[in-house]
Amino acid sequence: MSLDSRYNTIAKAIDANTSKFIDRLREAVAIQSISADPGHRQDVIKMIDWASKKLQSLGATTETVPLGKQTLPDGKTIGLPPVLLATLGNDPQKKTLLVYGHLDVQPARKEDGWDTEPFQLVEKSGKLYGRGATDDKGPIMGWINAIETFQSCKIAIPVNIKFCLEGMEENGSIGLEEALKARKDTWLSDVDFTCISDNYWLGATKPCITYGLRGLSYFSIEVSACKQDLHSGGFGGSIYEPLADVMWMLAQLADSDGTILIDGIHDLVAKVTVEERKLYDSIDFDQEAFKRTIGAKKLSRSSKSEILMNLWRYPSLSIHGVEGAFDGQGPKTIIPAKVTGKFSLRLVPNMDGETVEKLVLSYLDRLWEKRGSPNAYRAYQNYTGRYWLTDFKHPHYQCGARAIKRVFGVAPDYTREGCSIPITLTFEELTGKNVMLLPIGAGDDMAHSQNEKLNVKNYIMGTKMLAAYLLELGSL
Amino acid sequence: MSLDSRYNTIAKAIDANTSKFIDRLREAVAIQSISADPGHRQDVIKMIDWASKKLQSLGATTETVPLGKQTLPDGKTIGLPPVLLATLGNDPQKKTLLVYGHLDVQPARKEDGWDTEPFQLVEKSGKLYGRGATDDKGPIMGWINAIETFQSCKIAIPVNIKFCLEGMEENGSIGLEEALKARKDTWLSDVDFTCISDNYWLGATKPCITYGLRGLSYFSIEVSACKQDLHSGGFGGSIYEPLADVMWMLAQLADSDGTILIDGIHDLVAKVTVEERKLYDSIDFDQEAFKRTIGAKKLSRSSKSEILMNLWRYPSLSIHGVEGAFDGQGPKTIIPAKVTGKFSLRLVPNMDGETVEKLVLSYLDRLWEKRGSPNAYRAYQNYTGRYWLTDFKHPHYQCGARAIKRVFGVAPDYTREGCSIPITLTFEELTGKNVMLLPIGAGDDMAHSQNEKLNVKNYIMGTKMLAAYLLELGSL
Repeated sequence: MSLDSRYNTIAKAIDANTSKFIDRLREAVAIQSISADPGHRQDVIKMIDWASKKLQSLGATTETVPLGKQTLPDGKTIGLPPVLLATLGNDPQKKTLLVYGHLDVQPARKEDGWDTEPFQLVEKSGKLYGRGATDDKGPIMGWINAIETFQSCKIAIPVNIKFCLEGMEENGSIGLEEALKARKDTWLSDVDFTCISDNYWLGATKPCITYGLRGLSYFSIEVSACKQDLHSGGFGGSIYEPLADVMWMLAQLADSDGTILIDGIHDLVAKVTVEERKLYDSIDFDQEAFKRTIGAKKLSRSSKSEILMNLWRYPSLSIHGVEGAFDGQGPKTIIPAKVTGKFSLRLVPNMDGETVEKLVLSYLDRLWEKRGSPNAYRAYQNYTGRYWLTDFKHPHYQCGARAIKRVFGVAPDYTREGCSIPITLTFEELTGKNVMLLPIGAGDDMAHSQNEKLNVKNYIMGTKMLAAYLLELGSL
Repeated sequence: MSLDSRYNTIAKAIDANTSKFIDRLREAVAIQSISADPGHRQDVIKMIDWASKKLQSLGATTETVPLGKQTLPDGKTIGLPPVLLATLGNDPQKKTLLVYGHLDVQPARKEDGWDTEPFQLVEKSGKLYGRGATDDKGPIMGWINAIETFQSCKIAIPVNIKFCLEGMEENGSIGLEEALKARKDTWLSDVDFTCISDNYWLGATKPCITYGLRGLSYFSIEVSACKQDLHSGGFGGSIYEPLADVMWMLAQLADSDGTILIDGIHDLVAKVTVEERKLYDSIDFDQEAFKRTIGAKKLSRSSKSEILMNLWRYPSLSIHGVEGAFDGQGPKTIIPAKVTGKFSLRLVPNMDGETVEKLVLSYLDRLWEKRGSPNAYRAYQNYTGRYWLTDFKHPHYQCGARAIKRVFGVAPDYTREGCSIPITLTFEELTGKNVMLLPIGAGDDMAHSQNEKLNVKNYIMGTKMLAAYLLELGSL
């Protein structure tokens, strides 16, 4: 059968199974696999088990690799979820594709401002709302759907497929790199390409393939003054207040427009070349639509290329919040006893994580000294993950481009991303082979935020795209 | 019967009923009457009903006065809890005492760091732990216990007693002042003294009577950039981040040691007189014990009188927290879309609330202009309550002092308080009569904080003190 007719058979079967595939995603979203919250660690493990059984039912052999323990900021330890490795097919005549994805999700509570329960998948106007719908359970279900359809259509999958599915991506992928390094010469040795579907189109309509990601370094500033929170009437005026200390520190990390104030950071950033600058001109990016989607009055930069560069190739710094302070509605007159301010930097070429850690911590230490507070202070890096940049002219990328052309009828944009999937670089280094990011979700999916969603259209056409990509790999 | 023998009979009966009185407080603590949380408004109303029935069973006539509606920051309205007015006795031969207290409590959740469930009263090592145990349900139970004991001992209560018990004290006593003003020439017209037991001893062992309180002005700074929270990878670098704006504002309100930076605030504060300075010298206050109790490394001032003045007669500013930012454990990489920073000032003579509001808001507006952020900004005062200062040489205070001497065997310290009970001044103005604060709780009770408690000893001896005070009033 020609590639065309095989694809047409598969695409028809995918359409026919739309509601079954949505139910599959519903099941996955219902498991509250929040990796940042130690209270949900068992749910992450449950989610790994769930995916393991699904892959087994497709005929894969699976292995769950224990990753040891995680040390929490308070010094306690907690078991890490294992990483799931699965192998489907071992035909020496075929090339081998490695698929990476993550089964854990960001925290979510209805009271954060969701319109629906975050862990119940809700279909509304062609959109599937739920935590993890697009990041990253939807794309993983896409792979499972595509493989199942090959099998039900009795069409041979033209490559061997290996899956590496983890449960700590939203919490620094702790332990994963070591587990992969240990398998460099065994499980990883025959991998020919790696494909990751864990990012997003630039806008809401045009597909893209992504060849670069920012890294991430996450920091905490912990200040405590006393044993427990104090009544601000009974004690206000008598102590050095820790929340004031932390706010004073956090206020001096970046300017209003986001310019980072930490000494030495800008010197690490690669200079823009003439060739690179040209790439931005051809990208299909509507900054007015971007502004409308997020509902901002004004963006931090005025031109399309400046905004894209700020998102893709310059570092950014965001303050995320304060643990330990009053965060409820209405007034509460408390002096918080111990607070932890949290912020992170997105890293770009050539920001080395260790150097960033040193620069940030020494900047914080100097600020603290200047503050002159008698309170207990500790600043630390929670975790760091590397940026990644590769060659998008590789034949592997052309398989992705042909799959997109077949399903969506357009040539993709080649993009970079502001987000971080630090393990991407690890795969590239350990396999020595090309890695491609092939997103399914749209730019307005609101990963990490309230009302995260995946369009039904993206889910189903994305499943077809993955199937078409598998067919293309067979013709390489 | 002499005052001595009446007191002895009552004191014996109070001792005999200790466990019954603790059960009464347990019942009251179990009602989650959190006035700051609109979700608990019905519990506040339930608590008012509960107290109404208790006072009726003592023979009081009760009235619940509707106070209308509260407008929340988001523009929605919600019904206010009514204020409970009760009258016990109307003998024209007797003087009339007005007792004020509040039945609402501060927010509390076990995960804030409580050792026990905040709304279950737990007795441990002579202490009764629970939200509201000392602030202010314990003292109100003290009055009920004392009156019940007079009645069970068949000893006439030597004064008529009126109760004014509200459900919004921890949220600005909204509506109460108007309701009281409307009753100036009716229900309040025959009041001869007002007694309030809603504050604390200075330390943990020596009783005091309090003749001054700070006021309170509570402020919010609301900044929003976009429709919903954003992934800091996908959007970091493209927008002006609201949390950075709010932190930058909050960081410029006070110095590390608490010195307020808002222009004009210090000019409002009454100068310390030579006579006033002497008062501080004789107060029994151990600043080392104070420091140990709260567990602070260093206090904001070095001498006893400076600390007391900072707590009693100088304003203080505390930042309480940020609503809308990430406040959970671990890392979350979000750019919060809309955040509300919260802080408050404690007011002292002669800080007029309206002037403070103007100075604070104009300072914030100037800061905002300097910031130059394109985000939506709104600063507002949530509520304000006045400071209070009265003459502690009044005969009414001597009744309190004699009651303390009788129960505890010592003469009280005369103190001021950093806390705020803004309605105190209203009672003084509307009745034209002396108001006294007669605390039951100890200085380490941790009102508003985790593990709030009331010592069993303070509860029971406090009940005796209130009974002795009622007897003393009869001899005036």
